[in-house]
Amino acid sequence: MGTTQLETAPEPKYWHLKTVLSEALDSEFAVGEILPNERDLAARFGVARATLRQALEQLELEGRLQRRRGVGTTVAPPRMGVAVDPARHTWPGAPGDDWEPVEATEAETVPAAVARLLETVPGEPVHVVRRSRVTHGQPVAAELLYVPASSLRGAPETGKGAEGAEQPADAAARARDVLRRLQGLELEGQDRAVELGSARADDARRLDRLPGAPVLVVTTRYFARGRTAAVAVSTYRADTCRLTFGDSEAMTVLAG
Amino acid sequence: MGTTQLETAPEPKYWHLKTVLSEALDSEFAVGEILPNERDLAARFGVARATLRQALEQLELEGRLQRRRGVGTTVAPPRMGVAVDPARHTWPGAPGDDWEPVEATEAETVPAAVARLLETVPGEPVHVVRRSRVTHGQPVAAELLYVPASSLRGAPETGKGAEGAEQPADAAARARDVLRRLQGLELEGQDRAVELGSARADDARRLDRLPGAPVLVVTTRYFARGRTAAVAVSTYRADTCRLTFGDSEAMTVLAG
Repeated sequence: MGTTQLETAPEPKYWHLKTVLSEALDSEFAVGEILPNERDLAARFGVARATLRQALEQLELEGRLQRRRGVGTTVAPPRMGVAVDPARHTWPGAPGDDWEPVEATEAETVPAAVARLLETVPGEPVHVVRRSRVTHGQPVAAELLYVPASSLRGAPETGKGAEGAEQPADAAARARDVLRRLQGLELEGQDRAVELGSARADDARRLDRLPGAPVLVVTTRYFARGRTAAVAVSTYRADTCRLTFGDSEAMTVLAG
Repeated sequence: MGTTQLETAPEPKYWHLKTVLSEALDSEFAVGEILPNERDLAARFGVARATLRQALEQLELEGRLQRRRGVGTTVAPPRMGVAVDPARHTWPGAPGDDWEPVEATEAETVPAAVARLLETVPGEPVHVVRRSRVTHGQPVAAELLYVPASSLRGAPETGKGAEGAEQPADAAARARDVLRRLQGLELEGQDRAVELGSARADDARRLDRLPGAPVLVVTTRYFARGRTAAVAVSTYRADTCRLTFGDSEAMTVLAG
């Protein structure tokens, strides 16, 4: 049944099972392999289904297992490093950005937490740009970027799709247009917060996860003209992603 | 029973319950208040205990509820912003650092993932410095900092507790001594990765959580002399913490 390295703390039953299962994953299963069903696994390890399920949930939190709709529980590959670089000092959509603009809409209400960061008042129009990020062919993150219309007021026009000109009909083109106008402003700084969340139904669908799956939520504030000009709420799959933050000096060391 | 804002995706039962519960938390409960027991809650909302438990787990993931040993489930205060600043370019233990050194030991084996980052070989001695971080009187994070003895070789001696001198007897003093010697090296850069994990039994005890509770694991590499001189694995409570990453320009904007 394997042993655990834990010595002192009282150890719940599922925790011991988790350790045993983790060793079994190392020794008996390959990445991508589908695990036996819960009934068979519970019988093999002589535990109740509820205990087994708790242990599987732990292994999913740790990125060892993935539960996929219509497939079952599979052995997860190592997590991918996904760069979230606060040192780049660029607007979203700048060259080298890994995100794809999907669409832009105009909203009169935004989530309360976003409104607080943007200091907007209800009814104030806000551009909402939806973007997605795909790494190695897998969707890894979905983002909503909130840009109050007032942030873009007086921003240099970009020719195509600028105010007064004909609006681009295509959803992605509208998104690119908002990003282009934002890039006309001088970016004075940015900061980020990372926290644990659970996937909303719409993000879950886009990320190929079940609603409520654990996600890492990165909230970025972009500063221009002495205020918060835009806020991005980016939702990363917590099962497949490690978010990496590098500084340029470290990069040099690694490259050298 | 409240309504949800979700329109399109198929919605599991616990997910709907979560939304309803979340609204009840806003309207009927204060921060710190203990929720009724599971049986009463399940009866009130007309759901099975298993469904209720799934909804409570979601709310815990989102930081709305806290489960505390011997207390029960309480309404969580807003998460604390805890600064994890890759822009500071300082060694652990430098002035302004929020961590308290607890102890230092010398190990001949380190976790495989750490050994890979440090490029150490088995049997090579590694200083392991344990540190803890307390914010507003609450333990928020526990850290193990791994420093191969070879990283400190030739590092300027610091007088007190330097190689050859009498070793300080006190555990925290030994930890401070390793940090002081590390600070004698020129720091060439650092990078960080953030990922989801589950609390090991020892960290769980230190963070006042149950083993397996979701945590945010921050792995930091410190570079000196063209190699990885130290690796810190910091485990933050995911229920109470938002990790913040700021750049100095953004800070100026906020302060101004």
